[in-house]
Amino acid sequence: VSSDRRLGAPALLGLFAIGAAASLVGDQGHVASGATRYLDHGVPFIWESALWFPLMVGAGTVALAAVRLRLAPARSDLGLREAAAGIAAVSAIYAVTALVRDEPLGPATALVFALASLVTARFADDRSALVCGLLAVVAGTTTEIVMSAAGVFEYAHDIDPLAGVPPWLPALYFSFGVVSARLGEVFSR
Amino acid sequence: VSSDRRLGAPALLGLFAIGAAASLVGDQGHVASGATRYLDHGVPFIWESALWFPLMVGAGTVALAAVRLRLAPARSDLGLREAAAGIAAVSAIYAVTALVRDEPLGPATALVFALASLVTARFADDRSALVCGLLAVVAGTTTEIVMSAAGVFEYAHDIDPLAGVPPWLPALYFSFGVVSARLGEVFSR
Amino acid sequence: VSSDRRLGAPALLGLFAIGAAASLVGDQGHVASGATRYLDHGVPFIWESALWFPLMVGAGTVALAAVRLRLAPARSDLGLREAAAGIAAVSAIYAVTALVRDEPLGPATALVFALASLVTARFADDRSALVCGLLAVVAGTTTEIVMSAAGVFEYAHDIDPLAGVPPWLPALYFSFGVVSARLGEVFSR
Repeated sequence: VSSDRRLGAPALLGLFAIGAAASLVGDQGHVASGATRYLDHGVPFIWESALWFPLMVGAGTVALAAVRLRLAPARSDLGLREAAAGIAAVSAIYAVTALVRDEPLGPATALVFALASLVTARFADDRSALVCGLLAVVAGTTTEIVMSAAGVFEYAHDIDPLAGVPPWLPALYFSFGVVSARLGEVFSR
Repeated sequence: VSSDRRLGAPALLGLFAIGAAASLVGDQGHVASGATRYLDHGVPFIWESALWFPLMVGAGTVALAAVRLRLAPARSDLGLREAAAGIAAVSAIYAVTALVRDEPLGPATALVFALASLVTARFADDRSALVCGLLAVVAGTTTEIVMSAAGVFEYAHDIDPLAGVPPWLPALYFSFGVVSARLGEVFSR
Repeated sequence: VSSDRRLGAPALLGLFAIGAAASLVGDQGHVASGATRYLDHGVPFIWESALWFPLMVGAGTVALAAVRLRLAPARSDLGLREAAAGIAAVSAIYAVTALVRDEPLGPATALVFALASLVTARFADDRSALVCGLLAVVAGTTTEIVMSAAGVFEYAHDIDPLAGVPPWLPALYFSFGVVSARLGEVFSR
């Protein structure tokens, strides 16, 4: 454990790339399943996503990792295996949220919250990771509610009872925040 | 490891509340997906469940935890993280059994048994946890077969070839028994 | 860790039986969901599978386990719990590939690759397990492409864009290879 670990330029770039790439894959799932639909096409698209989406998730990954390192000492014994497991875990939950698009919202939401709890139990070492999870929930969910209300994109109306977003969305963001915190530890030096 | 660990009144209450709450969420999934249907409406309901259902699961959680502590010494190094992971794991399987309601019964059952095996490999330390799993299978499956035969509730007929209940039901109960045993260890003192 | 661990006759038989049995369960799922269809019925069948299929998977399990032990020293501290977890993990992914048969191929593939990554992070100790994973991908995917092209069986056409097989197939084989390598360690002496 070291209290002065930081993110160098390659780490910042790597974290941004991981967040952006994983968000493109996840968003393709949401678009393909009809969970979401982009309404504003006056922006460049990359694969199935409006360009701003991977940029925001990539930047969010970097920001959460940096916040994590500010909050508490980081473990120095974590390697690529830990990073791969964390990225895979969040990507799996992201894919699940697309695959349950036509299922009843109750058990779909229960499954996503249960999986997010497993991710938290596995990847959150201390309170700082939970803080990152909460930050991701507040920033991510609020942003999506606002952009959905503004007509930039929308969730399918049968899954959007939470002010225009699905009830499983906070759990997806929480797991994203917890794993971004862990990636901060892995990529720091 | 201590051989004289017991459940105090707050622990008993906590275990009952966990089992009851998790069963309400899981049962909502079964009702929403059409996996189950209550036929007897001459009893009070809470959310989507007949009142006796969460009471039975809550009581079962307490009973299994107590049996576990009778059978073998308990670990004393388990905390809330372990409890959260166990509850989340069983809740995830419970939600999966609702979400696969319209899928072919073969792969649905294979998935639930595989997930229950993973839960067992992760949470069952010794034979006493397996005994709790088997107790849960026998008591739970038998109770559901009898109550289904008595016309109190029913499973959808395309998923009920096992004397009126689905073939994945024993695996769900086994994981419930194994995790209840682990919760007994966590909540004992 | 021991560098001269080998597979005795009971181990070879056990590995063959595990691979064959798991493949029968998994293949039943693919046939039941309509993911695959046997076109050549001029061979004996067992359950829903042409006889050659469980024989090939059983033999592949043995071969991969043997290759693993040739490549690097084996851990000697792995027991039945490890074997059960590995078999359950691959069986769960196999069942998932059947259950997502009617879902959009993008998120279905993302989920299977994410789960295979989790299996790899959990069960692959070193490079030798990754080699076994790659061997399984090359041999398994190639065999299925050839047999599908030869009209022996086919995948549903809406999920077969990868030369006649689904894009998630390599990930399923990779996890099979990684776990077979681990089973080699467990069953060696």
